[in-house]
Order: sequence, then structure tokens, then C-alpha cells
Amino acid sequence: MRIKDQIDEIGKQAKKASAAMALASTAEKNTALHEIVQLIRTHKAQIQQANQADLNKANQNGLEPALLDRLSLSDKTIETMAIGLEQMTQLPDPIGEISDLKIRPSGIQVGKMRVPLGVIGIIYESRPNVTIDAAGLCIKSGNATILRGGSEAFECNQVLAQLVSQGLTRANLPAHAVQVIKTTDRDAVGHLITAKTYVDVIVPRGGKSLIQRIAEQATVPVIKHLDGICHTYIDAHANIEQAIQIADNAKTHRYGTCNTMETLLIHQAVAQKVLSKLVPLYLAKHVELRGCPATCALVQHAKPATEQDWFTEYLAPILSIRIVDSLEQAIQHINHYGSQHTDVIVTEHHSHAMQFIRQVDSASVMINASSRFADGFEYGLGAEIGISTDKLHARGPVGLEGLTSQKYVIFGHGEIRT
Amino acid sequence: MRIKDQIDEIGKQAKKASAAMALASTAEKNTALHEIVQLIRTHKAQIQQANQADLNKANQNGLEPALLDRLSLSDKTIETMAIGLEQMTQLPDPIGEISDLKIRPSGIQVGKMRVPLGVIGIIYESRPNVTIDAAGLCIKSGNATILRGGSEAFECNQVLAQLVSQGLTRANLPAHAVQVIKTTDRDAVGHLITAKTYVDVIVPRGGKSLIQRIAEQATVPVIKHLDGICHTYIDAHANIEQAIQIADNAKTHRYGTCNTMETLLIHQAVAQKVLSKLVPLYLAKHVELRGCPATCALVQHAKPATEQDWFTEYLAPILSIRIVDSLEQAIQHINHYGSQHTDVIVTEHHSHAMQFIRQVDSASVMINASSRFADGFEYGLGAEIGISTDKLHARGPVGLEGLTSQKYVIFGHGEIRT
Repeated sequence: MRIKDQIDEIGKQAKKASAAMALASTAEKNTALHEIVQLIRTHKAQIQQANQADLNKANQNGLEPALLDRLSLSDKTIETMAIGLEQMTQLPDPIGEISDLKIRPSGIQVGKMRVPLGVIGIIYESRPNVTIDAAGLCIKSGNATILRGGSEAFECNQVLAQLVSQGLTRANLPAHAVQVIKTTDRDAVGHLITAKTYVDVIVPRGGKSLIQRIAEQATVPVIKHLDGICHTYIDAHANIEQAIQIADNAKTHRYGTCNTMETLLIHQAVAQKVLSKLVPLYLAKHVELRGCPATCALVQHAKPATEQDWFTEYLAPILSIRIVDSLEQAIQHINHYGSQHTDVIVTEHHSHAMQFIRQVDSASVMINASSRFADGFEYGLGAEIGISTDKLHARGPVGLEGLTSQKYVIFGHGEIRT
Repeated sequence: MRIKDQIDEIGKQAKKASAAMALASTAEKNTALHEIVQLIRTHKAQIQQANQADLNKANQNGLEPALLDRLSLSDKTIETMAIGLEQMTQLPDPIGEISDLKIRPSGIQVGKMRVPLGVIGIIYESRPNVTIDAAGLCIKSGNATILRGGSEAFECNQVLAQLVSQGLTRANLPAHAVQVIKTTDRDAVGHLITAKTYVDVIVPRGGKSLIQRIAEQATVPVIKHLDGICHTYIDAHANIEQAIQIADNAKTHRYGTCNTMETLLIHQAVAQKVLSKLVPLYLAKHVELRGCPATCALVQHAKPATEQDWFTEYLAPILSIRIVDSLEQAIQHINHYGSQHTDVIVTEHHSHAMQFIRQVDSASVMINASSRFADGFEYGLGAEIGISTDKLHARGPVGLEGLTSQKYVIFGHGEIRT
């Protein structure tokens, strides 16, 4: 079968399955999740065997060690996938919820009912645990999903897809509610992101270049996360001890995550005090420092930062530092160089804090907390399919609610319009 | 200047203005609206003079009478525009609202703040009152907007745009917060809908072909309304008197609106009873009836409906009628032939009503009310920029809230992630 026909076939199946999923009860969806958990636990050997086949091939192809590490499924990673699904069974079911019911002067009662989006296409890179996370979130939110994982994890994803389909069947839900594309042909992605008839939204997860390419070529709407150039601004009125702890944590807790701080902004009034305490912490952890001229004058180890540095998501132990004259300059810097992901102010000055959260145009704005908190679990969404840097539909961590829509429901008593 | 450069220039101005608009106070925005109202009232002669120039040109070009009628601005239409803006000053300002603040186990407090989308491009056909409605909604929601009206209303739109800019200036808001494109060149639309750097969302208003073309070619996200193929289903358990009133009103209250019923579905158990009372009402109003074979057997005046009829938004005194065997068949018909706009069930059977609103996948689903209620004013949104048949971001009537987004705001006390 040609690739396009394969995708059309998968799309048709998904659309059909989505109608049944939209009507599935909470109990049915939770049963499916529990069945999948059990299947994962009882088929651990089979999953790891497929994973080993992927790893062998990746080794032959000379995949980088960091990517091999992400691809690898240990006992612990598999159990984490299972626990993730179990946690999803505990989340409230968003579907069918009716809110904001108001009686209007005409007599009709107007409210909103939460409904699934329909068919969600998810395109992701190597990590096979995304297959299970994404399948779980889509099942719980009453959607059908078409998954296109990285070719490196092909064998493993096929096994996981089979287990998911079995779990759905055991819960009397359509096996096609979760489908994994059975080809590594790159054309499949092109067909999937333009299959407007079958697919309601595309969620790409992976590197910036993958996401950019998908966003450019897709005709189906895309909920995307480009990059996370997160800032921490230490205000003149900051609690200095707190500022140091937050700036340390935001940079060094994990280097490779999108909510890691990449640029530190410090008000000139406190720059010397902050840097004298903070720089030794960074240097002890081998963080490379790049700074504006004022920073370089204060910090012996800092290299001059280039214009490009301020635009860069390092995802590495590198930090650029700029000393600013005012809160306004900090906000301007963030809105100009940032990626509208997550930005933080550390201050005890109430009006400064409120001005910052109002004026910084990012998906998450924080006062006196580490940017590392920008995460679906930490925000109480229970789980997330990704973090959106878009403005429309879903912004910031996207949990079950981001995978749903609302329709207006009107309860009348025979009202007609006059 | 080349068209593309003109659009880029307008886009840059809009983006700059949007930053100021996002921070404008409710008082400033309301002042601007009041100033514009005053300017409209004092410049009525000038508006009508420009409108007359447009009408003369349209007459020369042989525009259809219905279109001429929509283009024409009477004293009453102008006053309606002014009153519409005055009503907007009474609406609550959505911007800055913080909701859902919850304390998380880590100690951080997580909530959502409502913010403007940024720059909204609105592309519409002949009616010049849309210029004022759209400008008002965008001002109140803290957005900047770029308006591209129909070429037939060019002169009038230029005058209205000047008044709006003057009103903004009088309220100390940026004059460029509302800009009307100063060319009738069709290429301007192509550039506007692909100006991703400056434009956050496009709202097209007009005929289906215009909207379809824009949706296909746009790279900026589009909030759109395609067609309104609205259904009324009269259940076996309907209150027959109520059903007749609703079916009459939904079809004949106004023929040219998107929330007008185009197809009537009737359960076979009550078909004869309903049609014997309803058909005379329709015939008295010269509504052409097209029916399924069962309908044609019952209704002497009905012509056979073709497959295409079920897919058609007539926007005219034509109605297609189908007699169905069951609630399920009615739901299937609606989900297959409908346009996911507004669909109604008339029934006294509680479970049937709940099944219908859960299973019909439309922006508005109604029980025992006329589909003509699908409207921003009737739903209590205060005003609407249009009715969306999309699933993402905004669905159904789109008021101020549809022109906004939310960002996460996090209030911490020095929390770091461990």
C-alpha cells in the first residue's frame, strides 16, 4: 500500500474510533488504563527484547550516547510508565463536564460541555515512554490518537502499541483508538500533518528543527513547543538569599530541560552582592558563564556574551548573565530575546512583581520560584503532553484539558426568538 | 511602496501598538470607545457621504440589490454601531483577570491570568458596520487589529478608521491599535494571512468561498466559521405544539442567517401529526419544501430532496425534511451532513435529550429552543466577532474571551525544585 493510502486508512480508523471514545464512560477508560498497566508489567521481557533490538541497531548506526540513553528502557523506566498510567486513572475525567450554566433573559439556560478534540496526531523523537504517556492521556481525554514515534524506537513502539490495543479491547473500547504508524518512511509525517479530514490537531514533541518543520508544513492545527529560553530576573528589592537559591536551582537542577534558566538578569544595585555568592556555586558545578560587559567586569571567569547568546537555549551547563538598569529593561530583554516559555522575577517589591507578571508575555510567569516548576505535575494538571509556547487554545503545560474542547449546551423550554 | 512592504509596515505598527494595548486600563479602553461613539455621531454626514460614494461605485459596477442593501448605512445603522460600542463599555474587562489560584504541595500558588492575543487580522466583506464592531471588540479585549474590509466599502471604511484612530488618540491609546488596510489590492490579503511575525490570529468573516480560501492559504492561525447547516430534530416524545413553534421560528424568523434551520428531522411516530400542522405554516410563508421519500408521501407540495440537499446551507426560504426511525438515526444524520454549527432536539424525554447533547458534535447543541438563539448576545457574551465552527481555541459564538489567551501565573515564596 502507498504511504498516503496507509495514512488515510489509519486516519479513517482513528476517526471511527474517536466517535466511540467520545462516549466512553470514565469507568471504561480507567479499565483500559489498568489493563494496559497489567499488560506492560506482564510483558516486560518482550518490551525489553524489542528495545534491545532498537538499541543494537542504534549502536550500529553510531547513535550518540545521550540519545542511546534516552532510548534505553530499564526496569525502572518501564515501571515508571506503568505508574504514570495508574496515576491517570486517578485524575478527574474532563469529558461531559458542564460548567457556567446561566439563565438568560430569554429563558434559555446556556452552559458549556467539555468534549474531546477527536483525533490527535503525536509526532515524537526517540523516547519510547512517550508512546505510553501519550496513549494514556488521549484515552483518558476521550480522544483517538495516531502516534508516530522516532524510527530509532520502532520495534519497541510496535510492541507497546500492541499492548495498548489489547488493553483497549479488554475494556470494550475500540482497538484503533491508539494506533502507531507501522512504517519508518519519512513521508508518513507529511501525510499525517496534512490529513485535515481525519486529524483534528498535531502535537509534535522533539527538537526545535523537527517542530519548526512540522509547524511550517502542517495544514492541521498544531499545538507546539518551540524553545525554552527561560529568564530569572533578580530585582533590586529581592531577598538575596532566596534569589541565589532560585538562580542556582533554575540553572543547575537539570541542564537539558526546557524550563531550565538560560539567561540571568540582575539589577545593577544588587549585581555585585548576588554574583559574589552565586558565581562560586556555578563554577563548582562547572557552569560556563557568558556575560554583558558589566558582568565581565565583575566576574573574572565570564566570557563576553554575543548577541546570539541572548537568543540561545543552551540545554547545557552554560549561562548568560546581563546586568540591567531597571525592571523595565529586564522586561524588555525578556520580551525581545525570550521564547515566551517561563520567566521569573525574584523580588519583595509588590508593585514590581505585579508589573512583571502583567507585562512579560510568556506562557508561565513566576514570582519568587524556580522556573523548573513549569511542569504539568507541579501545576496540578496530573500529567502533560507537552508545554505549549503558542498563544491559541493551549498555553503552557498541556494536560487533559488541552486535549479537549467545549461546546455550548442550551437547555430550553420551548423558547423561540422574536 | 510594494504591497508586501505596506503590510509589513502595518504589521510592525500593530505589534508595537499591541504591547501598549495589553497594558491599557479598563478606563482608558472605555474612554476610547466613548470617544469613538461621539465622533461617529458628530461625523454622521461625513460617513454617509463616503458611503454614498461607495454606493455610487457599486451601482455602476452592477452590484446585486441584496449586497447594495448590506452596504448601505442609514441613520439607524449608524446609530446601531454607536450603541453597540456603548454596550461594549458596559462589558466586564476580561484582561488581567486571575482565576483558579491553587496552592500546590510544593508551596507555589498556580493560577491563570487572562491576556490579549496580540494582533488580530480581520478580513470581511461588504458591511461597513463590521469595521466598528470589530474595532470595538479588539480595543476592549486589549488587542491591536488590522482590518481588511470589502473593496465595495472602501471609502466608508477609511472614514470610520480615521474616527477610530482619533478616538484612540483622545484616550491616550496608540492610534495604530486599529488600522484599516489602505488598498483594495487583493494581494494584501495574501500577505496579511501569512504575516506570522506580526499577526497572531486571523478572523475571516464573509461567504464560504472567501473563508475557505483564507483557511487554505493562511499560515497564521485562523478562527473561522464555514457554514451553518443547522438541524432541528423532533423526537417521538416531543411536545408537539412546542415542536411546531420551534421548527417554524428556526426556519422562518430570518432566512439568511447562519443559525437558521436548513434541515428538519422528524421521528416517524409523530411525522404525520407534526407535518399536518407545520406544512401549512411554511406554505403560507412560501417556504419551498424538499423531502425524503417518506416526507414526499405525506406532503403533497414537497419535492424529492437530493443527496446534495442534505449538505446544503440554503440561506433562503427552502427547507429539507427527513423522517427518521430513531434518535440514533437523527444523530447520525446530523454528524454526517451537518456543519457542526447548531443543532436542536425537541423532546420531553430526559435521556433522549442528554444523549443528543452528548453525541451531537456541534458548537451549540440545544434542547427545546430555536437554533436562532445561537448568538453572542443571546448567550450573554455581550457581543461577538463571529461564530466559530472550529474545535480549537474558540467554538461557537466568539466574544471578548475568544480574543484572549491565558498565561500561568505562579506566586512563590522562594520555592526551588528538589
